[in-house]
Amino acid sequence: MPTSKKQSSSLQEKPGISSPEITNIAAINQIKNKRRKQPSSQELIKGILEGNRTSLSRAITLIESTNPEHAAKANEIVNGCLAHANKSVRIGITGVPGVGKSTFIEVFGKFLTALNKKVAVLAVDPSSSLSHGSILGDKTRMEELVKDENAFIRPSASGDTLGGVARKTRETIILCEAAGFDTIIIETVGVGQSETAVHSMVDFFLLLKISGAGDELQGIKRGIMEMADAIVINKADGDNIKKANLAKLEFNRALHLFPAKKSAWTPKVSTCSAITKDGISDIWKTISDYFEMTNESGFFQEKRKEQNQFWLMETINEQLKSNFYNQPEIILQLEENKKAVQNDEMSPFAAAQELLKLYFK
Amino acid sequence: MPTSKKQSSSLQEKPGISSPEITNIAAINQIKNKRRKQPSSQELIKGILEGNRTSLSRAITLIESTNPEHAAKANEIVNGCLAHANKSVRIGITGVPGVGKSTFIEVFGKFLTALNKKVAVLAVDPSSSLSHGSILGDKTRMEELVKDENAFIRPSASGDTLGGVARKTRETIILCEAAGFDTIIIETVGVGQSETAVHSMVDFFLLLKISGAGDELQGIKRGIMEMADAIVINKADGDNIKKANLAKLEFNRALHLFPAKKSAWTPKVSTCSAITKDGISDIWKTISDYFEMTNESGFFQEKRKEQNQFWLMETINEQLKSNFYNQPEIILQLEENKKAVQNDEMSPFAAAQELLKLYFK
Repeated sequence: MPTSKKQSSSLQEKPGISSPEITNIAAINQIKNKRRKQPSSQELIKGILEGNRTSLSRAITLIESTNPEHAAKANEIVNGCLAHANKSVRIGITGVPGVGKSTFIEVFGKFLTALNKKVAVLAVDPSSSLSHGSILGDKTRMEELVKDENAFIRPSASGDTLGGVARKTRETIILCEAAGFDTIIIETVGVGQSETAVHSMVDFFLLLKISGAGDELQGIKRGIMEMADAIVINKADGDNIKKANLAKLEFNRALHLFPAKKSAWTPKVSTCSAITKDGISDIWKTISDYFEMTNESGFFQEKRKEQNQFWLMETINEQLKSNFYNQPEIILQLEENKKAVQNDEMSPFAAAQELLKLYFK
Repeated sequence: MPTSKKQSSSLQEKPGISSPEITNIAAINQIKNKRRKQPSSQELIKGILEGNRTSLSRAITLIESTNPEHAAKANEIVNGCLAHANKSVRIGITGVPGVGKSTFIEVFGKFLTALNKKVAVLAVDPSSSLSHGSILGDKTRMEELVKDENAFIRPSASGDTLGGVARKTRETIILCEAAGFDTIIIETVGVGQSETAVHSMVDFFLLLKISGAGDELQGIKRGIMEMADAIVINKADGDNIKKANLAKLEFNRALHLFPAKKSAWTPKVSTCSAITKDGISDIWKTISDYFEMTNESGFFQEKRKEQNQFWLMETINEQLKSNFYNQPEIILQLEENKKAVQNDEMSPFAAAQELLKLYFK
């Protein structure tokens, strides 16, 4: 019978169940060794800087983990990679479902790797915790790119708030850059708040559209068109070409009406077909022109600095709110005060002051 | 010589300065009586509900005061007026300097009082603490309206942040409504964040423009056009009429390209002249149509409820930030961490976490 010594692993036997003194020392040691093999932060940083994809993937998994130990390790890795990051162009691509984002990114990505670019494709999709990774979740939709050794595809981190997904994506960008990827594509779906988050982490923002009947801008969330550095009308092939050209005209007219951008860049409208590949090289030309111009003017670096500041403050502000709104007594009192405000018994400001007094007491 | 009894008022004499035992009892009592005459909250509420303009003005002064005692009293008054508020239409009017906002509001206000409306004109201008009340500060710019007994004009509360000015304006709206004003006009200058604040406190948002050469939309802050329920091209008189009509065409085309509004309202573009008064009644017709439609659909009440919720949360969030960023140790550490982020020694997220740990410790 085994002694009553504390069980530290289910690999060891349970008391009360008869078994030999030692089940299988060799097997236990083998498993223990494998467990021990979890690479250290330093090993992962080294691997990433050497361009090792397994190290990169493992580190991203740590970033995505909700385990606090993993979070600490992920922090070390991100901070260790920072000095080697930033040498890339970051391109955001958005568009409502149905515009052909995956197919476009597949073709555009292949075009870039043929130019010897190293391309990482990431996604921001806070809804993916519900839809189980609707964006990039099905890697088979990019079956050519996924096999390309100069491309790295990672689905959206899931099971989280937009703030959480955004943080994870931002940190993943840093690791990808440290691993030598020079072109980072961030995909997002054009419905919701996620475009604003993506806009705040990329250098260039591309809005993908298709031509449709009537109002060309239906279905785009307010403000997204104003964010775009380029609008590309996809599926401009076959019978669609004429409609696509008309849409191009209409978008050009609309963009002309917007106030000038801080970058001094005039957004470009073009058509393309992911099937015939027409217009793909023009898009890269537009993006290259943008980078040349903003590098020369200093706007490129300026914007990255601003984005860093933005995320620093944004993280703080989100945490402050999260701490407040998760206090049990605040949750209760907020419900009551909301009702009092709706019934005109209390002004919104008086209601807020009461809650703040409760929180800071 | 006076005794060393504690001096409680400068109306009493100072020790060391010879003077009669009592300076002037009659004078002191007279001044003390005047001081005592400050009306109570209940008296002010009663006055406001009777439509007494002096009570209204005094209560607004309490709202604008930075004295904590006044703030408590103001809170009582606002909460006492709440049940009698809300019976009005709230119209926001914005436009860059030079479009003729004051003249337009004067003419539009006179038009409304002629229809037996009771019109209150308020302003949101957080810059007024610097410019000493640029908006509505000079009441002589509305010399007809200011004399109108059915109009009440109040310049922007000054010396404060946008959040502060917004709160004071929101509370002033409540008092004006309780005093029987049925049409509230909120003026703001079309440069900065203040339009978003005003948009969140009005039912109808009017963008005032003039026709110019070339790009009609230059100088409007991003997003403002999307907020507008109506765009009015002012100064459409004399030689300007043709240009104004062209501008109207261009704006109509631009508005048509925006996604549909939640209110299901299609923004209207029109021209007007504050000099010839052409187009003024059409603007009121548009606004009336809007109110009829949104009242019927329920959107009107829905939006007001949402705005109340917005201001409840907004006040809380602003206070949480203000408390955090004003801690002396946070101010110091934030400076250091910002530098570390700019030098790529720390990720924005790690920098934020460090600060949050410091705050919540």
